[in-house]
Amino acid sequence: MTTTASQNLTAELGAKADRHLWGHFARHGAGITPPIITRGDGVHIWDSNGKRYIDGLSGLFVVQVGHGREEIAEAAKKQAETLGFFPLWSYATPPAIELAERLANYAPGDLNRVFFTTGGGDAVESAWKLAKQYYKLTGRPGKYKVISRSIAYHGTPHGALAITGLPTFKAPFEPITPGGFRVPNTNFYRAPEGHDTDIKEFGQWAANRIAEAIEMEGPDSVAAVFLEPVQNAGGCFPPPPGYFERVREICDEYDVLLVSDETICAFGRIGSMFACNDFNYVPDIITCAKGLTSGYAPLGAMIASDRLFEPFNDGQTTYAHGYTWGGHPVSAAVAMANLDVFEREGLNNHVKTTAPAFRATLEKLLDLPIVGDVRGEGFFYGIELVKDKATKAILDDELSEWLLRSFLSVELFEAGLYCRADDRGDSVVQLAPPLISDQAVFDEIEQILRRVFTQAWDHLQTRGDAWH
Amino acid sequence: MTTTASQNLTAELGAKADRHLWGHFARHGAGITPPIITRGDGVHIWDSNGKRYIDGLSGLFVVQVGHGREEIAEAAKKQAETLGFFPLWSYATPPAIELAERLANYAPGDLNRVFFTTGGGDAVESAWKLAKQYYKLTGRPGKYKVISRSIAYHGTPHGALAITGLPTFKAPFEPITPGGFRVPNTNFYRAPEGHDTDIKEFGQWAANRIAEAIEMEGPDSVAAVFLEPVQNAGGCFPPPPGYFERVREICDEYDVLLVSDETICAFGRIGSMFACNDFNYVPDIITCAKGLTSGYAPLGAMIASDRLFEPFNDGQTTYAHGYTWGGHPVSAAVAMANLDVFEREGLNNHVKTTAPAFRATLEKLLDLPIVGDVRGEGFFYGIELVKDKATKAILDDELSEWLLRSFLSVELFEAGLYCRADDRGDSVVQLAPPLISDQAVFDEIEQILRRVFTQAWDHLQTRGDAWH
Repeated sequence: MTTTASQNLTAELGAKADRHLWGHFARHGAGITPPIITRGDGVHIWDSNGKRYIDGLSGLFVVQVGHGREEIAEAAKKQAETLGFFPLWSYATPPAIELAERLANYAPGDLNRVFFTTGGGDAVESAWKLAKQYYKLTGRPGKYKVISRSIAYHGTPHGALAITGLPTFKAPFEPITPGGFRVPNTNFYRAPEGHDTDIKEFGQWAANRIAEAIEMEGPDSVAAVFLEPVQNAGGCFPPPPGYFERVREICDEYDVLLVSDETICAFGRIGSMFACNDFNYVPDIITCAKGLTSGYAPLGAMIASDRLFEPFNDGQTTYAHGYTWGGHPVSAAVAMANLDVFEREGLNNHVKTTAPAFRATLEKLLDLPIVGDVRGEGFFYGIELVKDKATKAILDDELSEWLLRSFLSVELFEAGLYCRADDRGDSVVQLAPPLISDQAVFDEIEQILRRVFTQAWDHLQTRGDAWH
Repeated sequence: MTTTASQNLTAELGAKADRHLWGHFARHGAGITPPIITRGDGVHIWDSNGKRYIDGLSGLFVVQVGHGREEIAEAAKKQAETLGFFPLWSYATPPAIELAERLANYAPGDLNRVFFTTGGGDAVESAWKLAKQYYKLTGRPGKYKVISRSIAYHGTPHGALAITGLPTFKAPFEPITPGGFRVPNTNFYRAPEGHDTDIKEFGQWAANRIAEAIEMEGPDSVAAVFLEPVQNAGGCFPPPPGYFERVREICDEYDVLLVSDETICAFGRIGSMFACNDFNYVPDIITCAKGLTSGYAPLGAMIASDRLFEPFNDGQTTYAHGYTWGGHPVSAAVAMANLDVFEREGLNNHVKTTAPAFRATLEKLLDLPIVGDVRGEGFFYGIELVKDKATKAILDDELSEWLLRSFLSVELFEAGLYCRADDRGDSVVQLAPPLISDQAVFDEIEQILRRVFTQAWDHLQTRGDAWH
């Protein structure tokens, strides 16, 4: 396309978007036209002006195998022609059956039963609904509450929202579903005084806060604990050593279900098909989505243990829940093709072997005065930006707003890197590139970040009173 | 495939399904293996034994243009190769933009703003969340409650579930999101005494019950009314003449939003792109999904008026809501290809012109003693089954269970018709074939129903005490 043609296309699509499209978690108003992404190939995406970017976020923690995989597109086409839709409402389709078996085989322990959903948030909804009905069926009907962690994001439908630990995401929609309670997350960089020296001690402290919450609410009222293996919102908080062992003990002690919300961490993001395997715990339920199809089609799943299925296996009792699109045949066929790529190309092994290099490359940025912390696991890192490295002082709201939204989001994108500048917790930049990324990609990401972070720091110095 | 080969395939897939797949709204247990649907073409589907069926339910009110459309499969492939995924989180993609504009053009009034979701239930979630935030932003923060109709189904996430009017679908999951209140539906066949002679009077009575509910709850606490144009659950209740005019008046009088939940009725099911156009009312929000893609890819949408978007258009205020898969580029491209088929083949016009013949064909069944009522609009009908036509006596729970689950579901399928035998309200069989169906299909449906209904009646006569 010529420059003029692409400019015209951009103007035309931009005007339509401004008039008709309502963006997700997006600002709207004069002068805010969303960048229009038109094409992807491997680790790269292109906008409507023909400009190329590194997809440093895999879309939204999604495109594990990279963009433009013809064999996955071909699998979608083949299934759409053969059987483009049929529901799993008392019926089944071959791709959904095959995928259910495959996921059960990847899952640890006796997590053998797969309930398909439309995405991650609805997998979380499904897990909570299952926990509630399970306890009602097995003689403990008062168990309905759920515990999750501060700042954690678990989705946006009213139930998932009650599990999400971000107050500002809930306030506009109150009253939401009752029963959600919060405990501290595993942000060791901001560990409270007295628990900030020994990470293992910190992990036990954080895990024990779950026991405390169960005790305070009453064990007879608590149904489940929802945890991400590595918490995304806040900027990639890995579990301290021993954390999940202790959480599993607590859940067993109080007869509370442990739900591993792997919407982001499953399918190689940490290096295994399911991240509970990376951290050696067996949950009662896994929720997943995103990487399951590498984004080529919408799909989610809740994988439950045989124990949880048992009360529903009497020929009569129904888990009164469902989604028209859950386990869509094209989405399931796409997931199968995607997982074939994983296995053929050894992507999990690639993540495991190159993650240390990726981490080391990003840790080079720790020499910059604005970079307070680099943390994460696998191909999933958060870089925390601070005002003062020695004191770990955070940017105030106004500076953070300017830095993340007015400066970094614009300048990083302008410099050719699509990633996430986020202030749901403290100010962070997140990286989660496709799992096919190699050292050349790591280096390019680091160089762009270094240049733009350096500019950001310089600008912050000159912002006068706001800074000092 | 040979008979032996297909038997082996059926056995193998069946065993895997029994072990690993958790069906939606499905029973599980010894001897319950779900039928496995493997292929579709036009109005037909095939199972794993190679047996053919009429798809009398369009999958699940979904496959409007029929199965096996190569051009839609091709559109999916092309988009998946070009850009298989990118989120609408402050970014945009060409197919989502084009589809947003197209939907806004189809929608009535000033419903110009399209927020994409993953499906119908999440479109309902989104509409409720928008209503809550809208009133909080515009100085009436106490308005959060919603009113919906008895037996109506609006989805299964915790918020949509609070709007759903089926107590048995909610009981296992209590406590659910607070704020859902019920009014009577428009089942004229079961209209209460005093309102059962003049359908127009009945419609005014039913609409006024919404005003009554708003008054009882307090207008300052009520945000929205959720109504399907033709209510699905219960067996296709059309709106009486004048009903929606009166509902619109009531909503305006009390400053309550009218949400037209068109998850089932949009995209030609009644004969127009949006069914509010069929019934001449302009809602504040339309929710839709299903027929938007004819099922070839998962997608949903909430379409809101300019007035509702206005408080979010200040460059700062965010509708703090989103779905990773919402407005998926492949799903949006599929929707565009699907709507192209609609327009090229004049499907809405086909529905409008042949619906009277479809209805007349089904009404022939009124000569059977078991058929109490045939009702619906467009390509969307419910047939109510009764014990006594003169008294409209319903089947008791045990007989209804036997009739719908043990007999009709099995025998109709065996006879080559996939449709829905449902007892969420009274006992009904529902028909909603692909919009390409013609008189030959209508006749075949009627003949199968006639034969199996006749057998059912005969069996019921011999079931002794349970019957008399």
